[in-house]
Amino acid sequence: MDFVDVVRKRRSVRRFSSQPVDPAALERILDAGTRGPTAGYSQGQSFILITDPATITAIATLQDDEERALTGREPRSSPPAFGAPVMICACTNEADYHRRYQLPDKVLPDGSEIGWPVPFWHFDIGAAVMLLLLAAVNEGLAAVFVGPTQDVQKIRDVLSIPDEVTPAGFVILGHRAPDEVKRSDLSRRRRPLADYVHRERW
Amino acid sequence: MDFVDVVRKRRSVRRFSSQPVDPAALERILDAGTRGPTAGYSQGQSFILITDPATITAIATLQDDEERALTGREPRSSPPAFGAPVMICACTNEADYHRRYQLPDKVLPDGSEIGWPVPFWHFDIGAAVMLLLLAAVNEGLAAVFVGPTQDVQKIRDVLSIPDEVTPAGFVILGHRAPDEVKRSDLSRRRRPLADYVHRERW
Repeated sequence: MDFVDVVRKRRSVRRFSSQPVDPAALERILDAGTRGPTAGYSQGQSFILITDPATITAIATLQDDEERALTGREPRSSPPAFGAPVMICACTNEADYHRRYQLPDKVLPDGSEIGWPVPFWHFDIGAAVMLLLLAAVNEGLAAVFVGPTQDVQKIRDVLSIPDEVTPAGFVILGHRAPDEVKRSDLSRRRRPLADYVHRERW
Repeated sequence: MDFVDVVRKRRSVRRFSSQPVDPAALERILDAGTRGPTAGYSQGQSFILITDPATITAIATLQDDEERALTGREPRSSPPAFGAPVMICACTNEADYHRRYQLPDKVLPDGSEIGWPVPFWHFDIGAAVMLLLLAAVNEGLAAVFVGPTQDVQKIRDVLSIPDEVTPAGFVILGHRAPDEVKRSDLSRRRRPLADYVHRERW
């Protein structure tokens, strides 16, 4: 699909059909997700592809239980993961960045590491997730990104994620449900370009 | 350009020609950059488009002075910004996220804000920068993302950026220099897909 069409068609879809996803499409989506830049080419990102309905339900249950406990409201994700057949857990590893910046070409002469005014392990997994979301649209699929539970250890436990790795959230993807409607009740609108962009200086 | 070609052609280019960039292409690139998802649709991102050579030199000088001071090595960015005619400062505003999550549909019943296991203001600007980088390729341009100085206040001062806004770095863009060569001396290779991706669990 043309790049501009992919970007314009992408939106957060929260209702999926049960139609299965072509495994070859999933591999292409995952491949695209590895092609973003990373600080120092640290490549501290990982994806966990989840298609087992029991695991999807386990993750969705964690999220829903947390939402109920925090807000007292019934979660809107029902059925689990909005009915999607696939989740990709997007993970990032801060320790990979520190290890990278301790290598000879990056470490400072006194043996210390550069400072990190921006936690690029989070920035870079955001870039990777953007690629996954766009690549899903390019395959004719729909997706939404949702954050992790506030206690990420619960997600680590379900997915056997090492302690040094942070599950930053989940790309939930599948075919858009035929009766999914673009939410027109959104009170928040996309900011106009003139508001996003400053010229020459702020 | 086809989406897959855009993704595959994108790489970090660090040598640009002095050929000017079509202003209409810049507007399309900036527009693409606003089309990523943001937590709670907070949209706490902003871009500063910089084409004034004096400002580009001022930013590049900050970066180069810092590199010299930290490493004792001569920076490799000479000429300033690798000779590129355009920089986009990618900014993010954590305070926008907190304001968003204090609104009635997000704030918790006791008036407190959700916890943030991931600083989504950094994740989301990473997603936005990914769109800028891809959109540059789609316009036949080349780009590289570079981080800010470790003391981001120096950049705020040059660009009149408010204190609550963090300049996360710069997309440097233009036409690839004809004699730019893909760095083949990179000791770090892209991790194979099998290393990036786990199946069902870590």
